[in-house]
Amino acid sequence: MNHILPHKTVERLSHYRRCLSFLIEQERETVFSHELAAMLHYTPVQVRRDVMLIGHEGTLRHGYVVKDLHKQIIDIIESRDNVNIAIVGYGDLGRAIMHYIMGRNPSMHIAAAFDVNPNKIGKYHDGILCFHVDDIVETIKEYKIQIAVLTTPAQVAQKVADDLVAAGIKGLLNYTTKKIKLPEKIYLEEYDMITSLEKVAYFMKFAGK
Amino acid sequence: MNHILPHKTVERLSHYRRCLSFLIEQERETVFSHELAAMLHYTPVQVRRDVMLIGHEGTLRHGYVVKDLHKQIIDIIESRDNVNIAIVGYGDLGRAIMHYIMGRNPSMHIAAAFDVNPNKIGKYHDGILCFHVDDIVETIKEYKIQIAVLTTPAQVAQKVADDLVAAGIKGLLNYTTKKIKLPEKIYLEEYDMITSLEKVAYFMKFAGK
Repeated sequence: MNHILPHKTVERLSHYRRCLSFLIEQERETVFSHELAAMLHYTPVQVRRDVMLIGHEGTLRHGYVVKDLHKQIIDIIESRDNVNIAIVGYGDLGRAIMHYIMGRNPSMHIAAAFDVNPNKIGKYHDGILCFHVDDIVETIKEYKIQIAVLTTPAQVAQKVADDLVAAGIKGLLNYTTKKIKLPEKIYLEEYDMITSLEKVAYFMKFAGK
Repeated sequence: MNHILPHKTVERLSHYRRCLSFLIEQERETVFSHELAAMLHYTPVQVRRDVMLIGHEGTLRHGYVVKDLHKQIIDIIESRDNVNIAIVGYGDLGRAIMHYIMGRNPSMHIAAAFDVNPNKIGKYHDGILCFHVDDIVETIKEYKIQIAVLTTPAQVAQKVADDLVAAGIKGLLNYTTKKIKLPEKIYLEEYDMITSLEKVAYFMKFAGK
Protein backbone atom coordinates (compact mmCIF):
# COMPACT_ATOMS: atom_id res chain seq x y z
CA MET A 1 0.00 0.00 0.00
CA ASN A 2 1.92 3.00 -1.19
CA HIS A 3 -0.92 5.23 -2.32
CA ILE A 4 -2.84 7.37 0.16
CA LEU A 5 -6.37 6.12 0.70
CA PRO A 6 -9.35 8.50 0.72
CA HIS A 7 -10.46 9.82 4.14
CA LYS A 8 -13.78 8.05 4.07
CA THR A 9 -12.12 4.75 3.19
CA VAL A 10 -9.79 5.02 6.19
CA GLU A 11 -12.82 5.70 8.39
CA ARG A 12 -14.58 2.65 7.03
CA LEU A 13 -11.44 0.48 7.40
CA SER A 14 -11.38 1.44 11.07
CA HIS A 15 -14.98 0.23 11.35
CA TYR A 16 -14.35 -2.98 9.41
CA ARG A 17 -11.40 -3.72 11.68
CA ARG A 18 -13.63 -3.44 14.73
CA CYS A 19 -16.29 -5.71 13.20
CA LEU A 20 -13.71 -8.26 12.18
CA SER A 21 -12.20 -8.29 15.70
CA PHE A 22 -15.69 -9.03 16.98
CA LEU A 23 -16.12 -11.84 14.44
CA ILE A 24 -12.76 -13.33 15.46
CA GLU A 25 -13.98 -13.40 19.07
CA GLN A 26 -17.09 -15.19 17.81
CA GLU A 27 -14.81 -17.70 16.06
CA ARG A 28 -16.29 -16.92 12.66
CA GLU A 29 -13.99 -17.98 9.83
CA THR A 30 -15.51 -16.23 6.84
CA VAL A 31 -17.80 -13.28 6.27
CA PHE A 32 -19.68 -11.98 3.24
CA SER A 33 -19.57 -8.38 2.10
CA HIS A 34 -23.32 -8.08 2.68
CA GLU A 35 -22.88 -9.21 6.29
CA LEU A 36 -20.19 -6.61 7.00
CA ALA A 37 -22.39 -4.07 5.23
CA ALA A 38 -25.38 -4.94 7.43
CA MET A 39 -23.34 -4.66 10.64
CA LEU A 40 -22.21 -1.15 9.71
CA HIS A 41 -25.13 0.14 7.67
CA TYR A 42 -23.03 0.45 4.52
CA THR A 43 -23.99 -1.03 1.16
CA PRO A 44 -22.42 -4.35 0.08
CA VAL A 45 -21.09 -2.56 -3.02
CA GLN A 46 -19.27 -0.07 -0.79
CA VAL A 47 -17.70 -2.84 1.25
CA ARG A 48 -16.55 -4.72 -1.85
CA ARG A 49 -15.11 -1.52 -3.33
CA ASP A 50 -13.15 -0.72 -0.14
CA VAL A 51 -11.81 -4.26 0.16
CA MET A 52 -10.78 -4.21 -3.51
CA LEU A 53 -9.08 -0.86 -2.96
CA ILE A 54 -6.76 -2.35 -0.35
CA GLY A 55 -5.99 -5.25 -2.70
CA HIS A 56 -7.72 -7.98 -0.74
CA GLU A 57 -9.59 -10.78 -2.46
CA GLY A 58 -12.51 -12.87 -1.32
CA THR A 59 -14.26 -15.80 -2.95
CA LEU A 60 -17.79 -15.65 -4.31
CA ARG A 61 -18.73 -18.77 -2.40
CA HIS A 62 -17.34 -18.14 1.05
CA GLY A 63 -16.76 -14.41 1.15
CA TYR A 64 -13.69 -13.06 2.92
CA VAL A 65 -11.51 -14.99 5.35
CA VAL A 66 -12.04 -13.03 8.56
CA LYS A 67 -8.49 -13.36 9.91
CA ASP A 68 -6.84 -12.50 6.58
CA LEU A 69 -8.92 -9.41 5.97
CA HIS A 70 -8.45 -8.34 9.60
CA LYS A 71 -4.69 -8.68 9.31
CA GLN A 72 -4.54 -6.81 6.02
CA ILE A 73 -6.56 -3.89 7.41
CA ILE A 74 -4.40 -3.77 10.55
CA ASP A 75 -1.28 -3.65 8.38
CA ILE A 76 -2.69 -0.56 6.72
CA ILE A 77 -4.24 1.42 9.55
CA GLU A 78 -2.13 0.40 12.52
CA SER A 79 1.46 1.44 12.72
CA ARG A 80 4.02 -1.31 13.04
CA ASP A 81 5.55 0.78 15.81
CA ASN A 82 3.52 2.10 18.70
CA VAL A 83 1.99 5.50 18.20
CA ASN A 84 2.67 7.67 21.23
CA ILE A 85 -0.13 9.99 22.22
CA ALA A 86 -0.32 12.91 24.66
CA ILE A 87 -3.46 14.22 26.30
CA VAL A 88 -3.06 17.99 26.58
CA GLY A 89 -5.51 19.45 29.07
CA TYR A 90 -6.21 16.81 31.69
CA GLY A 91 -9.68 17.72 32.88
CA ASP A 92 -12.91 15.72 32.56
CA LEU A 93 -12.76 15.54 28.80
CA GLY A 94 -9.06 14.70 28.65
CA ARG A 95 -9.49 11.91 31.19
CA ALA A 96 -12.60 10.58 29.47
CA ILE A 97 -10.76 10.44 26.16
CA MET A 98 -7.79 8.74 27.79
CA HIS A 99 -9.98 6.03 29.33
CA TYR A 100 -11.77 5.68 26.04
CA ILE A 101 -8.57 5.13 24.06
CA MET A 102 -6.83 2.81 26.50
CA GLY A 103 -6.94 -0.77 25.36
CA ARG A 104 -9.04 -0.16 22.26
CA ASN A 105 -6.21 -0.11 19.80
CA PRO A 106 -3.10 -1.92 21.02
CA SER A 107 -0.76 0.15 18.84
CA MET A 108 -1.92 3.39 20.47
CA HIS A 109 -0.07 4.22 23.63
CA ILE A 110 -0.85 7.17 25.85
CA ALA A 111 2.57 8.36 26.89
CA ALA A 112 1.93 11.55 28.86
CA ALA A 113 -0.65 14.08 29.98
CA PHE A 114 -0.29 17.86 30.40
CA ASP A 115 -2.12 20.34 32.57
CA VAL A 116 -1.53 23.53 34.58
CA ASN A 117 -3.21 22.35 37.80
CA PRO A 118 -0.48 21.87 40.47
CA ASN A 119 -2.57 19.10 42.10
CA LYS A 120 -2.27 17.01 38.97
CA ILE A 121 1.30 17.69 37.95
CA GLY A 122 4.04 15.20 38.83
CA LYS A 123 1.49 12.52 39.66
CA TYR A 124 0.37 9.36 37.93
CA HIS A 125 -3.31 9.09 37.00
CA ASP A 126 -4.30 5.65 35.72
CA GLY A 127 -0.66 4.99 34.99
CA ILE A 128 -0.10 8.20 33.02
CA LEU A 129 2.28 10.84 34.37
CA CYS A 130 1.01 14.42 34.21
CA PHE A 131 3.44 17.22 33.28
CA HIS A 132 3.17 21.00 33.36
CA VAL A 133 2.24 22.53 30.02
CA ASP A 134 5.37 24.70 30.31
CA ASP A 135 7.46 21.54 29.89
CA ILE A 136 5.58 20.45 26.78
CA VAL A 137 8.31 20.87 24.18
CA GLU A 138 11.00 18.85 25.93
CA THR A 139 8.56 16.18 27.21
CA ILE A 140 7.00 15.60 23.78
CA LYS A 141 10.48 15.13 22.37
CA GLU A 142 11.67 12.89 25.20
CA TYR A 143 8.65 10.58 25.00
CA LYS A 144 8.66 10.59 21.17
CA ILE A 145 5.01 11.66 21.10
CA GLN A 146 3.57 11.89 17.59
CA ILE A 147 -0.08 12.68 18.26
CA ALA A 148 -1.61 15.17 20.69
CA VAL A 149 -5.22 15.28 21.80
CA LEU A 150 -6.04 18.89 22.68
CA THR A 151 -8.68 19.56 25.34
CA THR A 152 -7.40 22.81 26.88
CA PRO A 153 -9.52 25.94 27.40
CA ALA A 154 -10.17 27.68 24.06
CA GLN A 155 -8.10 30.76 24.98
CA VAL A 156 -4.81 28.86 25.11
CA ALA A 157 -5.53 26.29 22.37
CA GLN A 158 -3.59 28.00 19.57
CA LYS A 159 -0.58 28.78 21.77
CA VAL A 160 -0.38 25.20 23.05
CA ALA A 161 -0.86 23.85 19.52
CA ASP A 162 2.04 26.01 18.32
CA ASP A 163 4.23 24.57 21.09
CA LEU A 164 3.19 21.04 20.11
CA VAL A 165 4.18 21.73 16.53
CA ALA A 166 7.52 23.18 17.69
CA ALA A 167 8.06 19.98 19.68
CA GLY A 168 7.62 17.93 16.53
CA ILE A 169 4.19 16.29 16.73
CA LYS A 170 2.80 15.04 13.45
CA GLY A 171 -0.92 14.84 14.11
CA LEU A 172 -3.38 16.73 16.30
CA LEU A 173 -6.93 16.07 17.39
CA ASN A 174 -8.50 19.34 18.47
CA TYR A 175 -11.45 18.97 20.87
CA THR A 176 -11.45 22.58 22.04
CA THR A 177 -14.07 25.05 20.85
CA LYS A 178 -11.34 27.11 19.19
CA LYS A 179 -10.53 26.47 15.56
CA ILE A 180 -6.77 26.30 15.24
CA LYS A 181 -4.33 26.88 12.44
CA LEU A 182 -1.37 24.55 11.87
CA PRO A 183 1.32 24.18 9.22
CA GLU A 184 0.12 21.96 6.39
CA LYS A 185 2.53 19.18 7.21
CA ILE A 186 0.69 18.49 10.50
CA TYR A 187 -2.44 16.38 10.13
CA LEU A 188 -5.33 18.04 11.96
CA GLU A 189 -8.74 16.65 12.92
CA GLU A 190 -11.14 18.96 14.74
CA TYR A 191 -14.30 17.99 16.53
CA ASP A 192 -16.62 20.33 18.34
CA MET A 193 -19.35 18.79 20.49
CA ILE A 194 -21.34 21.97 20.91
CA THR A 195 -21.58 22.43 17.15
CA SER A 196 -22.69 18.80 16.80
CA LEU A 197 -25.38 19.35 19.41
CA GLU A 198 -26.49 22.56 17.74
CA LYS A 199 -26.73 20.68 14.45
CA VAL A 200 -28.91 18.01 16.05
CA ALA A 201 -31.08 20.69 17.66
CA TYR A 202 -31.45 22.52 14.35
CA PHE A 203 -32.13 19.54 12.09
CA MET A 204 -34.46 17.70 14.44
CA LYS A 205 -36.93 20.54 13.90
CA PHE A 206 -37.20 19.45 10.27
CA ALA A 207 -36.79 15.70 10.76
CA GLY A 208 -39.70 13.61 9.57
CA LYS A 209 -41.37 16.54 7.87
CA MET B 1 -36.19 31.11 7.65
CA ASN B 2 -38.41 28.36 6.37
CA HIS B 3 -35.99 26.48 4.18
CA ILE B 4 -33.58 23.94 5.64
CA LEU B 5 -30.00 25.16 5.57
CA PRO B 6 -27.15 22.90 4.40
CA HIS B 7 -25.31 20.95 7.11
CA LYS B 8 -22.03 22.78 6.61
CA THR B 9 -23.79 26.14 6.86
CA VAL B 10 -25.35 25.19 10.21
CA GLU B 11 -21.91 24.17 11.44
CA ARG B 12 -20.45 27.49 10.36
CA LEU B 13 -23.37 29.43 11.90
CA SER B 14 -22.57 27.75 15.20
CA HIS B 15 -18.98 28.96 14.88
CA TYR B 16 -19.99 32.49 13.85
CA ARG B 17 -22.30 32.65 16.85
CA ARG B 18 -19.41 31.82 19.15
CA CYS B 19 -17.14 34.43 17.55
CA LEU B 20 -19.86 37.05 17.73
CA SER B 21 -20.48 36.30 21.43
CA PHE B 22 -16.79 36.86 21.98
CA LEU B 23 -16.91 40.15 20.04
CA ILE B 24 -19.89 41.30 22.11
CA GLU B 25 -17.86 40.66 25.27
CA GLN B 26 -15.11 42.77 23.72
CA GLU B 27 -17.68 45.53 23.12
CA ARG B 28 -17.07 45.50 19.38
CA GLU B 29 -19.95 47.04 17.45
CA THR B 30 -19.22 46.02 13.89
CA VAL B 31 -17.20 43.32 12.18
CA PHE B 32 -16.11 42.73 8.59
CA SER B 33 -16.55 39.43 6.79
CA HIS B 34 -12.79 39.15 6.39
CA GLU B 35 -12.33 39.49 10.16
CA LEU B 36 -14.82 36.71 10.92
CA ALA B 37 -13.16 34.66 8.19
CA ALA B 38 -9.72 35.15 9.74
CA MET B 39 -10.94 34.15 13.22
CA LEU B 40 -12.31 30.87 11.89
CA HIS B 41 -9.98 30.12 8.98
CA TYR B 42 -12.78 30.41 6.45
CA THR B 43 -12.63 32.56 3.33
CA PRO B 44 -14.35 36.00 3.36
CA VAL B 45 -16.42 34.84 0.37
CA GLN B 46 -17.69 31.88 2.38
CA VAL B 47 -18.67 34.15 5.28
CA ARG B 48 -20.50 36.57 3.00
CA ARG B 49 -22.31 33.72 1.28
CA ASP B 50 -23.47 32.22 4.58
CA VAL B 51 -24.62 35.57 5.92
CA MET B 52 -26.50 36.24 2.68
CA LEU B 53 -28.10 32.81 2.90
CA ILE B 54 -29.69 33.67 6.24
CA GLY B 55 -30.94 36.94 4.80
CA HIS B 56 -28.73 39.28 6.81
CA GLU B 57 -27.28 42.43 5.31
CA GLY B 58 -24.14 44.33 6.14
CA THR B 59 -22.77 47.57 4.78
CA LEU B 60 -19.68 47.82 2.65
CA ARG B 61 -18.26 50.52 4.88
CA HIS B 62 -18.80 49.14 8.36
CA GLY B 63 -19.40 45.45 7.79
CA TYR B 64 -21.98 43.65 9.94
CA VAL B 65 -23.50 44.98 13.14
CA VAL B 66 -22.25 42.43 15.67
CA LYS B 67 -25.37 42.36 17.85
CA ASP B 68 -27.77 42.15 14.90
CA LEU B 69 -25.96 39.33 13.18
CA HIS B 70 -25.58 37.52 16.52
CA LYS B 71 -29.29 37.80 17.20
CA GLN B 72 -30.25 36.63 13.74
CA ILE B 73 -28.02 33.56 13.98
CA ILE B 74 -29.38 32.73 17.43
CA ASP B 75 -32.92 32.96 16.08
CA ILE B 76 -32.00 30.33 13.54
CA ILE B 77 -29.88 27.87 15.45
CA GLU B 78 -31.19 28.19 18.98
CA SER B 79 -34.65 27.05 19.84
CA ARG B 80 -37.00 29.60 21.31
CA ASP B 81 -37.87 26.96 23.88
CA ASN B 82 -35.24 25.12 25.85
CA VAL B 83 -33.96 21.94 24.31
CA ASN B 84 -33.95 19.18 26.91
CA ILE B 85 -31.04 16.79 26.69
CA ALA B 86 -30.37 13.43 28.35
CA ILE B 87 -26.96 11.88 28.90
CA VAL B 88 -27.37 8.13 28.49
CA GLY B 89 -24.44 6.26 29.99
CA TYR B 90 -23.07 8.32 32.83
CA GLY B 91 -19.43 7.26 32.94
CA ASP B 92 -16.33 9.36 32.31
CA LEU B 93 -17.35 10.32 28.81
CA GLY B 94 -20.97 11.08 29.72
CA ARG B 95 -19.87 13.29 32.60
CA ALA B 96 -17.24 15.04 30.50
CA ILE B 97 -19.81 15.80 27.82
CA MET B 98 -22.26 17.05 30.43
CA HIS B 99 -19.71 19.45 31.94
CA TYR B 100 -18.74 20.53 28.47
CA ILE B 101 -22.29 21.36 27.45
CA MET B 102 -23.36 23.09 30.66
CA GLY B 103 -23.43 26.81 30.28
CA ARG B 104 -22.14 26.92 26.72
CA ASN B 105 -25.48 27.31 25.04
CA PRO B 106 -28.17 28.75 27.31
CA SER B 107 -31.01 27.12 25.38
CA MET B 108 -29.58 23.66 25.98
CA HIS B 109 -30.65 22.14 29.24
CA ILE B 110 -29.42 18.81 30.55
CA ALA B 111 -32.53 17.34 32.11
CA ALA B 112 -31.52 13.82 33.16
CA ALA B 113 -28.82 11.19 33.10
CA PHE B 114 -29.16 7.40 32.81
CA ASP B 115 -26.93 4.56 33.90
CA VAL B 116 -27.09 1.02 35.29
CA ASN B 117 -24.67 1.54 38.18
CA PRO B 118 -26.67 1.39 41.46
CA ASN B 119 -24.20 3.82 43.11
CA LYS B 120 -25.19 6.51 40.64
CA ILE B 121 -28.93 5.96 40.36
CA GLY B 122 -31.29 8.13 42.37
CA LYS B 123 -28.55 10.66 43.11
CA TYR B 124 -27.78 14.12 41.85
CA HIS B 125 -24.44 14.68 40.15
CA ASP B 126 -23.71 18.34 39.41
CA GLY B 127 -27.40 19.04 39.71
CA ILE B 128 -28.47 16.29 37.31
CA LEU B 129 -30.53 13.37 38.62
CA CYS B 130 -29.42 9.94 37.42
CA PHE B 131 -32.07 7.34 36.55
CA HIS B 132 -31.87 3.63 35.78
CA VAL B 133 -31.81 2.84 32.06
CA ASP B 134 -34.83 0.58 32.63
CA ASP B 135 -36.89 3.71 33.38
CA ILE B 136 -35.78 5.46 30.22
CA VAL B 137 -39.07 5.52 28.29
CA GLU B 138 -41.20 7.07 31.03
CA THR B 139 -38.46 9.47 32.21
CA ILE B 140 -37.74 10.78 28.70
CA LYS B 141 -41.46 11.45 28.29
CA GLU B 142 -41.88 13.02 31.72
CA TYR B 143 -38.92 15.41 31.29
CA LYS B 144 -39.85 16.17 27.66
CA ILE B 145 -36.37 15.24 26.50
CA GLN B 146 -35.78 15.79 22.79
CA ILE B 147 -32.09 14.97 22.38
CA ALA B 148 -30.11 12.08 23.82
CA VAL B 149 -26.34 11.83 24.00
CA LEU B 150 -25.43 8.15 23.89
CA THR B 151 -22.24 7.00 25.66
CA THR B 152 -23.20 3.47 26.75
CA PRO B 153 -21.09 0.36 26.10
CA ALA B 154 -21.30 -0.64 22.42
CA GLN B 155 -23.16 -3.89 23.13
CA VAL B 156 -26.29 -2.15 24.43
CA ALA B 157 -26.19 0.94 22.20
CA GLN B 158 -28.77 -0.18 19.64
CA LYS B 159 -31.20 -1.48 22.27
CA VAL B 160 -30.99 1.75 24.29
CA ALA B 161 -31.32 3.82 21.10
CA ASP B 162 -34.49 1.87 20.20
CA ASP B 163 -35.92 2.66 23.65
CA LEU B 164 -35.06 6.33 23.21
CA VAL B 165 -36.88 6.37 19.88
CA ALA B 166 -39.87 4.62 21.47
CA ALA B 167 -39.85 7.33 24.16
CA GLY B 168 -40.12 10.02 21.49
CA ILE B 169 -36.71 11.63 21.20
CA LYS B 170 -36.10 13.58 18.01
CA GLY B 171 -32.32 13.73 17.80
CA LEU B 172 -29.47 11.51 18.91
CA LEU B 173 -25.74 12.00 19.24
CA ASN B 174 -24.04 8.62 19.22
CA TYR B 175 -20.60 8.57 20.88
CA THR B 176 -20.43 4.80 21.25
CA THR B 177 -18.20 2.69 19.01
CA LYS B 178 -21.31 0.95 17.64
CA LYS B 179 -22.95 2.33 14.52
CA ILE B 180 -26.65 2.46 15.14
CA LYS B 181 -29.73 2.41 12.93
CA LEU B 182 -32.66 4.74 13.59
CA PRO B 183 -35.89 5.56 11.77
CA GLU B 184 -35.34 8.35 9.25
CA LYS B 185 -37.42 10.85 11.17
CA ILE B 186 -34.84 10.88 14.01
CA TYR B 187 -31.82 13.09 13.35
CA LEU B 188 -28.63 11.16 14.06
CA GLU B 189 -25.05 12.40 14.46
CA GLU B 190 -22.35 9.84 15.13
CA TYR B 191 -18.83 10.49 16.30
CA ASP B 192 -16.21 7.89 16.98
CA MET B 193 -13.00 9.01 18.69
CA ILE B 194 -11.06 5.87 17.96
CA THR B 195 -11.73 6.20 14.25
CA SER B 196 -10.62 9.85 14.40
CA LEU B 197 -7.43 8.85 16.12
CA GLU B 198 -6.83 6.07 13.62
CA LYS B 199 -7.33 8.59 10.82
CA VAL B 200 -4.76 10.94 12.38
CA ALA B 201 -2.34 8.03 12.84
CA TYR B 202 -2.82 6.94 9.23
CA PHE B 203 -2.61 10.32 7.53
CA MET B 204 0.25 11.72 9.61
CA LYS B 205 2.45 9.11 7.92
CA PHE B 206 1.88 10.93 4.62
CA ALA B 207 1.71 14.48 5.94
CA GLY B 208 4.28 16.85 4.55
CA LYS B 209 5.37 14.36 1.93
